[in-house]
Amino acid sequence: MRKFKMAVCQMLVTEDKEENLAKAEKMIREAKSQGAHIAVLPEIFNCPYSRKAMVQAAETYPGETTNRLSSLAKELSMYIVGGSIAEKSHDKIYNTSFIFGPLGELLGSHRKMHLFDIDIKGKITFKESDVFEAGEKVTVVDTEFCKIGVAICFDVRFPELMRIMALKGAEVIIIPAAFNTTTGPAHWHDTIKIRAVDNQVYCIGASPARNLQSNYHAYGFSTIIDPFGKVIAATKEEETIIYGEIDLDYLEKVREELPLLKNRRKDLYTLTEL
Amino acid sequence: MRKFKMAVCQMLVTEDKEENLAKAEKMIREAKSQGAHIAVLPEIFNCPYSRKAMVQAAETYPGETTNRLSSLAKELSMYIVGGSIAEKSHDKIYNTSFIFGPLGELLGSHRKMHLFDIDIKGKITFKESDVFEAGEKVTVVDTEFCKIGVAICFDVRFPELMRIMALKGAEVIIIPAAFNTTTGPAHWHDTIKIRAVDNQVYCIGASPARNLQSNYHAYGFSTIIDPFGKVIAATKEEETIIYGEIDLDYLEKVREELPLLKNRRKDLYTLTEL
Repeated sequence: MRKFKMAVCQMLVTEDKEENLAKAEKMIREAKSQGAHIAVLPEIFNCPYSRKAMVQAAETYPGETTNRLSSLAKELSMYIVGGSIAEKSHDKIYNTSFIFGPLGELLGSHRKMHLFDIDIKGKITFKESDVFEAGEKVTVVDTEFCKIGVAICFDVRFPELMRIMALKGAEVIIIPAAFNTTTGPAHWHDTIKIRAVDNQVYCIGASPARNLQSNYHAYGFSTIIDPFGKVIAATKEEETIIYGEIDLDYLEKVREELPLLKNRRKDLYTLTEL
Repeated sequence: MRKFKMAVCQMLVTEDKEENLAKAEKMIREAKSQGAHIAVLPEIFNCPYSRKAMVQAAETYPGETTNRLSSLAKELSMYIVGGSIAEKSHDKIYNTSFIFGPLGELLGSHRKMHLFDIDIKGKITFKESDVFEAGEKVTVVDTEFCKIGVAICFDVRFPELMRIMALKGAEVIIIPAAFNTTTGPAHWHDTIKIRAVDNQVYCIGASPARNLQSNYHAYGFSTIIDPFGKVIAATKEEETIIYGEIDLDYLEKVREELPLLKNRRKDLYTLTEL
């Protein structure tokens, strides 16, 4: 199929893990009922984005959250990009996205490679490396439609990673993320847009809804942007699902008309995954 | 000096070469009188952006245009980033930016590395490689303020080149360019902004004014964007000079607070100039 439907579930994450899992399931069922082939959840969707909560909610794989996502993918016969959760592994915790196919099978998982250590005076300070270990590999999974790259939040800041995913064949790049109300307005939309344009891919940013009851105010503004940089779907802070059609023929047309990937000067520079 | 003033001369380019050179000189003199330390001209500023005109106007170095820029830089004791001109060299023609220091000395020159070959059906078709040979090297020059990277128009599309300039120490990246009225509205501003944000540099886009008498309608919208992505100066289509203060202490602050360059995963990917 050269066209398929993507749903981004901008869910409101609360302190209650069971409530979060039920909400994710409800939104994914709704996405399926609207004809979506792939549903995407936001970064850290089963607990608040705080050190304490993430350590408490951490699960090994397989575990409660991933089992539920896998069963749901199978039951609905759809792809689920499971935002991210705190993943416990050998006494370490990772910020990990688990991606399931329509048979409930694990297609791949991405451990956030670039941790969010930021200290903007008087605005926002967060040191994610106090909780998480960083991942060590680039993630591009195969689906029946195309290859899909997955990276998490701060990862999107690094053009090298985005480019490597495109060079590995990704035609869609999905970024479960939780930008904040400082860097969100400043950088979120334009970063996703230019990743789409530079790499001639559909680029999807999936945020939680903004929860003013929470200590960390996620920016929201989930979006789906096409390979020419046009916004296919977008929203603001509130809980909602946005939908967009991915059209691989259009992607191919953009790559032919504005040949960016083709005109890279491979004779003058090289970007290598180590 | 940790602060200095940048002027971008968004000049209207006509068919008359002498008129263009006189206009460039006049605008640079005006920039100097306003206290600018560096004046920037747009891509192909001494003739229209058309095959025929560029072939006709092509000069060897040193030549009429570069001599005038060099003399002016010396007389005014300022830096001039000479947009670009068609440069003839050994029976080939390049799209080249010549950069002069305050003694009139040539600090460096950049030959456009990525040629603008584009074919957007019903909108714009241009095959720059029919006229030009592509350049073969990255250009970062030393000034008394900081290192400055220079690349031309379509070069800005390639995040590898922008990143390499930053890794070579550029704190300012200057892009003489002539985007058009299709790709300009779609990509110009956000591309320059995200190059600034990703690489934590000041990024400057210098366009000609839009000349509706010309066959090629340059987009205009020259801009100076700071390392956090804030627009310091911008304009629309008309002939004008925009000014912006470059503040290297602010740049350092941004690099500390939002440590992107520092947090690249050099252990997982490598970008190399060949």
